[in-house]
Amino acid sequence: MKSIAELQEVFNRYLNKQSFRNQPEELYIPFQYILSLGGKRMRPTMVLLGCEMFSHDAEQALPQAMAIELFHNFSLIHDDIMDKAPLRRGKPTVHEKFNNNTAILSGDVMLVYAYEYLLENSKEKAEQLIRLFNKTAIEVCEGQQFDMNFENDNRVSVNDYLKMIELKTAVLLGCALKMGAIMGGANEDDTNRICEVGRKLGIAFQLQDDVLDSFGDEKKFGKQPGGDIIQNKKTMLLIETLEKATEEQLKVLKFWMDKKEFEPKEKVKAIMDIYYELNIRDIAENEILRYYEEAMLTLDEIDIPEIGKTEIRNFAKSLLVRES
Amino acid sequence: MKSIAELQEVFNRYLNKQSFRNQPEELYIPFQYILSLGGKRMRPTMVLLGCEMFSHDAEQALPQAMAIELFHNFSLIHDDIMDKAPLRRGKPTVHEKFNNNTAILSGDVMLVYAYEYLLENSKEKAEQLIRLFNKTAIEVCEGQQFDMNFENDNRVSVNDYLKMIELKTAVLLGCALKMGAIMGGANEDDTNRICEVGRKLGIAFQLQDDVLDSFGDEKKFGKQPGGDIIQNKKTMLLIETLEKATEEQLKVLKFWMDKKEFEPKEKVKAIMDIYYELNIRDIAENEILRYYEEAMLTLDEIDIPEIGKTEIRNFAKSLLVRES
Repeated sequence: MKSIAELQEVFNRYLNKQSFRNQPEELYIPFQYILSLGGKRMRPTMVLLGCEMFSHDAEQALPQAMAIELFHNFSLIHDDIMDKAPLRRGKPTVHEKFNNNTAILSGDVMLVYAYEYLLENSKEKAEQLIRLFNKTAIEVCEGQQFDMNFENDNRVSVNDYLKMIELKTAVLLGCALKMGAIMGGANEDDTNRICEVGRKLGIAFQLQDDVLDSFGDEKKFGKQPGGDIIQNKKTMLLIETLEKATEEQLKVLKFWMDKKEFEPKEKVKAIMDIYYELNIRDIAENEILRYYEEAMLTLDEIDIPEIGKTEIRNFAKSLLVRES
Repeated sequence: MKSIAELQEVFNRYLNKQSFRNQPEELYIPFQYILSLGGKRMRPTMVLLGCEMFSHDAEQALPQAMAIELFHNFSLIHDDIMDKAPLRRGKPTVHEKFNNNTAILSGDVMLVYAYEYLLENSKEKAEQLIRLFNKTAIEVCEGQQFDMNFENDNRVSVNDYLKMIELKTAVLLGCALKMGAIMGGANEDDTNRICEVGRKLGIAFQLQDDVLDSFGDEKKFGKQPGGDIIQNKKTMLLIETLEKATEEQLKVLKFWMDKKEFEPKEKVKAIMDIYYELNIRDIAENEILRYYEEAMLTLDEIDIPEIGKTEIRNFAKSLLVRES
């Protein structure tokens, strides 16, 4: 049984052997650029892990891992245009480095290449893989639209938010593990269970991201905390706070949320003070723990030797204590 | 054997039965909007025609026709953003009616739905269909990038232009006919031949479009002629003109092409005068005829009774004499 670190390494070796040096280069240079920005390669590694768990032969799912990585990068390119994000992994985003048109088009072509990789080595599993991929891709797009809608909607509930992050982020993790499991020959019940495990962990992962964005250690988290607060991003932290706040606290919240010009550190401190008063971090961490535990219960039901579950258990635990 | 008009009707009935009323509606309303703008449905009709030719049972290819129509509309939505086009079929484009972000995202989700339709009813043909679709989609994206590159490139040759329109426009027509033929059970040689017929006719069709844009009758063409001239669009007409022009004519061409402010009608007349002097229309129409004849020679090689070829012959002939 290979470890997650080993699988990540296996994927990176495969990725480096792929060539996307076609013409016109205006289309393919951005394509290579975003793939070269690196990252943890969490999603393709999950494809390999899903396959390794059920077959001890992760390599057979490498093309599907590549498909998931391409899909993820396609969605980053397009989301960054929509969010007008200047930076991705500390480097200029594709639309900043090149331009919007190139970013739209190289994202499009990347999505098509994802389908090409899905077919590789998949034979009679092709239809199942593509249907799973389609369903997931549609959900991710829907999640992104909900996220954009929420920016101008003041009635977003915690449940709305959880549904949104499930679509935008968590389903892809579930899809990655399930795709690997399908390639590894898992039975239908187990492919559905591992999908569920991925979804639950994906939600926990995103909630942890939200917590780190406000409460993270600047040195370990790698960026200045409070970005979500500055942008009034309706994360679970802010939604819970708005629901639980006293009238006095609501006044302060509204004051800072409506203010157009402000010193970022002042706003972050003012809102963080209320987060502390309401124990918002505990509430969020309990929710994370709940998703983690549900994921582990589903994992228990999967019918493989315990040794095959070690790596995903370690991965899940690492989510709970991560600082970056 | 059904006629093209009947197949168009069959497709429209099928299209009207499809439902894309999912949530969030911000994503799906633009989706329904562009499909509702109508048009000749040339591409899905070609899928049905390809199937009808080889099986006399076009209906079995309806989902694949839908996939091609969705792909076409996805590419229209994204191209219109890139070209900053305000109108499509006389109505506001998706990014104008809604906004850029929604246009990017609803285009993306439309492309994914295309893959979902491809799988329907295709069984053991699925892999072949998806590989064909991927190859075509990649070529269309590459063609669009070449088209954008050409805007700022003064060394575009006629061959570069022909290659670009082949990728951007013609391959999709070839793909449509081939996809239908595959669904209709044609043998491999014939599916490749019908693909070739579609590509050749697609190039002829685009060249005819270019001719109509300059020489079309305003009443019949439905829009004021000269749009390409006003924008300095490097169509075959302009490229040939730049290559064949005398020094005197070149001066006039450069004067109008460099001029930032001008009376559109004056510029169109000045450049059209040179087109007439150099017999550019004849040159373009000879080229169209050449592609038409090549297409018909390839059609002759296809091993089906002549009756099955009547409709595509009529369609091809109609391209030569069309005025709108």
